[in-house]
Amino acid sequence: MNFLEERILRDGIVKEGNVLKVDSFLNHQMDIALMDQMGEEFCHRFAGKKVTKVLTIEASGIAIACSVARCFGVPVVFAKKSKSINIDGDMYVAEVESFTHKNKNQVIVSKKFLSADDQVLIIDDFLANGCALQGLISIVESAGATVAGLGIAIEKGFQIGGQVIRNLGYHLESLAIVEAMNAADGTVTFRPQA
Amino acid sequence: MNFLEERILRDGIVKEGNVLKVDSFLNHQMDIALMDQMGEEFCHRFAGKKVTKVLTIEASGIAIACSVARCFGVPVVFAKKSKSINIDGDMYVAEVESFTHKNKNQVIVSKKFLSADDQVLIIDDFLANGCALQGLISIVESAGATVAGLGIAIEKGFQIGGQVIRNLGYHLESLAIVEAMNAADGTVTFRPQA
Repeated sequence: MNFLEERILRDGIVKEGNVLKVDSFLNHQMDIALMDQMGEEFCHRFAGKKVTKVLTIEASGIAIACSVARCFGVPVVFAKKSKSINIDGDMYVAEVESFTHKNKNQVIVSKKFLSADDQVLIIDDFLANGCALQGLISIVESAGATVAGLGIAIEKGFQIGGQVIRNLGYHLESLAIVEAMNAADGTVTFRPQA
Repeated sequence: MNFLEERILRDGIVKEGNVLKVDSFLNHQMDIALMDQMGEEFCHRFAGKKVTKVLTIEASGIAIACSVARCFGVPVVFAKKSKSINIDGDMYVAEVESFTHKNKNQVIVSKKFLSADDQVLIIDDFLANGCALQGLISIVESAGATVAGLGIAIEKGFQIGGQVIRNLGYHLESLAIVEAMNAADGTVTFRPQA
């Protein structure tokens, strides 16, 4: 069991409806030492890949993305979920449906910050049905850039997202893959990793 | 002139309507070395203050907040702008109007992550009319916690926000205070700092 799986067992809370609350350390309150440990682990798992940018989506992916980017010595670009008046007209746009919020968002990245030369490592905190990741992949492809890989903190292995991304041939690394959760007794079962 | 003022002059873009675009290094693409330099500068400016939590608001304050929190060895809590089904009922809520987006948002922090014992350093990327900061201060006060200080990357000194916060007696540190901008010739004038 790795450090993130241990932390989930210690501080995660299982709720009805396959909701895993990790808001005390990952996506509302954030343990910075844990972010840095995840950053180093992703650096290790994607060692040997050329990475020129880390791409994430606001808001809870940003902290992890910063720790990963520090290791690689590259900038972070975060996709925005709604059109801002401070964003230029020249943007990549993808349509994304949120599993959590049950709504559709336009995901936006300025064309200034992704080019055909870029090798992009996509980072996010959660992967469930994978719509957010598909939107980010779509944006990287629109730019003519290359997806160097995808790094996720917690994958819900009982939902389709991870399998779809792997079937498409992308290198996806999830630090913790939840196979099952039980709200009645609070247990979490992880997929064994090598 | 400090490192952030120099960076603004080099890479910031002045647009009509007193818009300063810093999206190439601060709030869309992010230079992680710059984030860390800002984090260290805030640590220096708030040295001697007891800080138990860093509080920011999604999304563009998160990266700076993480760098500050690393220096202080404390967690980051980021306020959320819309109600999520993954947040418990027990929340602090403040009403905030966005200068950028021209709309009102509820700003939300779970009661689990702020208590009367907390000494809170509030961090954000921009200060203009100050509504976001006022919302965060309101949330800290609702928790019975103490505002240890407020750290801002870029303050628009020609708008009222900074003066209001200082008049209220809070310790506000802005790394760059823009006194004037000229979209015609692209110049930016900073308030001199000691």
